[in-house]
Amino acid sequence: MDKPSPPFDPKDFRRALGMFATGVTIVTTCSDDGTQVGVTANSFNSVSLDPPMVLWSLANNARSLPVFSTSQDWNVHILSNAQEALSNRFARSGEDKFAGLSLEKSISKAPLLPGCSARFQCRTAFQYEGGDHTIFVGEVLQYDSSSLPPLLYVKGGYALAAPMAGPVSTESQANLEGASYSENLLGYLFGRAHFQFVHGLRGTLQARQLSDTDFFVLSLLSVRQPLTTDEIAAHIAYTGVDLASGALQSMVQRGLLLEHVGDATQLRLSPAGSDAILHVLAAAKAVESDLVQRMGELESAGLRNLLKQAILATDPGLPKLWQAPVHF
Amino acid sequence: MDKPSPPFDPKDFRRALGMFATGVTIVTTCSDDGTQVGVTANSFNSVSLDPPMVLWSLANNARSLPVFSTSQDWNVHILSNAQEALSNRFARSGEDKFAGLSLEKSISKAPLLPGCSARFQCRTAFQYEGGDHTIFVGEVLQYDSSSLPPLLYVKGGYALAAPMAGPVSTESQANLEGASYSENLLGYLFGRAHFQFVHGLRGTLQARQLSDTDFFVLSLLSVRQPLTTDEIAAHIAYTGVDLASGALQSMVQRGLLLEHVGDATQLRLSPAGSDAILHVLAAAKAVESDLVQRMGELESAGLRNLLKQAILATDPGLPKLWQAPVHF
Repeated sequence: MDKPSPPFDPKDFRRALGMFATGVTIVTTCSDDGTQVGVTANSFNSVSLDPPMVLWSLANNARSLPVFSTSQDWNVHILSNAQEALSNRFARSGEDKFAGLSLEKSISKAPLLPGCSARFQCRTAFQYEGGDHTIFVGEVLQYDSSSLPPLLYVKGGYALAAPMAGPVSTESQANLEGASYSENLLGYLFGRAHFQFVHGLRGTLQARQLSDTDFFVLSLLSVRQPLTTDEIAAHIAYTGVDLASGALQSMVQRGLLLEHVGDATQLRLSPAGSDAILHVLAAAKAVESDLVQRMGELESAGLRNLLKQAILATDPGLPKLWQAPVHF
Repeated sequence: MDKPSPPFDPKDFRRALGMFATGVTIVTTCSDDGTQVGVTANSFNSVSLDPPMVLWSLANNARSLPVFSTSQDWNVHILSNAQEALSNRFARSGEDKFAGLSLEKSISKAPLLPGCSARFQCRTAFQYEGGDHTIFVGEVLQYDSSSLPPLLYVKGGYALAAPMAGPVSTESQANLEGASYSENLLGYLFGRAHFQFVHGLRGTLQARQLSDTDFFVLSLLSVRQPLTTDEIAAHIAYTGVDLASGALQSMVQRGLLLEHVGDATQLRLSPAGSDAILHVLAAAKAVESDLVQRMGELESAGLRNLLKQAILATDPGLPKLWQAPVHF
């Protein structure tokens, strides 16, 4: 590790500081003339429990510094992982940052934003010199928090936190003449997670005499329809389902799909098909809710995030499912 | 969200503050008599670029406060994800925290620890009052950083950062008369990850004329054999595979499995079956390696952990696959 001496290259110094992960906050206040002000800051931290105090710092050349310096009241919002766009909005200058936001009632005139992981309503206790920044230490007068997973900022980009889990069964590993496979193989974990999830829908699928193929086709058409048989195949061939064996024709015969014969035959859900997939999706949402409740919101959000990365990394070039607007 | 007013319940206030994610640091110094001192702190933050300054705060009742107050020089270590034990060691009091650690050369007498994500060697610029804590603002005299992923602390526990993934397709969401399903449904993400992974094996499976059912049965027996038909069913029925339709008998006829007829018929891999699954598992490992390389080691480890949590949360009571020792 090189050890630069002052004066430091600001970009490299900033990069080294970026190794310290932080949450992301928006700090808001209101000027005497009623102008609402807000900035994105990750320089927040807790300071004191008794009295309850937090701090953050603001650049001395920030346009909002005079307002924060004179106004005594400000609100710190710890952003949730769904508020990346809000973070970006308040990090820019110039526009009306509060346009279109529904604000909540605050104990002061400072704007209070919804949808956060936690919020602290503060009054300045100390204002300290800190080089090219001013450090604001505030006494917390009121606070609240939610279970929404927080947004993170680390190494110059947004991130999610992923807590650690224990083993599924045991850590031992099987060996077969040199080849080995263990519960740590992502391929095994994907399959087991998938089939256990579908297992939770099995009763609903069987009650309606739906095969896995029926389920995949109905799900697809519930998102986008009508589709030609070729388009359906392009979307679901990667599952290994063989549509050539008359699966779609069987679904038409059983009244699940409606066929529109034209240049290319197009298929859409029949009323019975719509009804069937509605019930299966309702069952899927119940399995999902139960899973999220057992795993926790933070873990679920982290898992979604990482599954998406894995899916992008293994995408065999599937057509985009949610790309176009959907009309029913 | 409830909004408590002062005096706050310290435990609940701490919990709300815990929604702000942080890195973890160890701050060290050395007393005039040469005693080395160090504490774990997550109250660190950057303050100023010009002059380069950082801050952290220490409880007024900390045993090390007198040393930090008189010594001018201290080092901040941003811990890497492999330094959880070191974090715990410096969070406790009483023992010789530096025992057995190999220290590096510092510009001051303050101890410098190896293996960190970044380190900042500082001299106190300001020392400020902050309720029950003292805020230390230091000018950075030297720093260095590595590429080691940083350790995180959020919601009262250690965590790893996972960069935010972009959307798999797009963020819009389909609606079908009230029911909706989007790419954020874990059930969808499990299925897509699973089938895309198996898609990478499809060529190997087809070249050997193996169905998905064949693959599941051969994989199972590669970990544990012999098994009765009932035991095989207990392990893989949750995948929806129908073994009643003669799938196992077909595998015996095709020479993939050997049958031992006794009180209950037991099945094991034939040499041809062993050879087939060896090749498929080798292909699976290649897909896995490629995936891990594309996603990153840290992300893959995080994904494995969270998938295990999801699998434990949805386990329909499957027999433990890796529980017993395996003999071939």
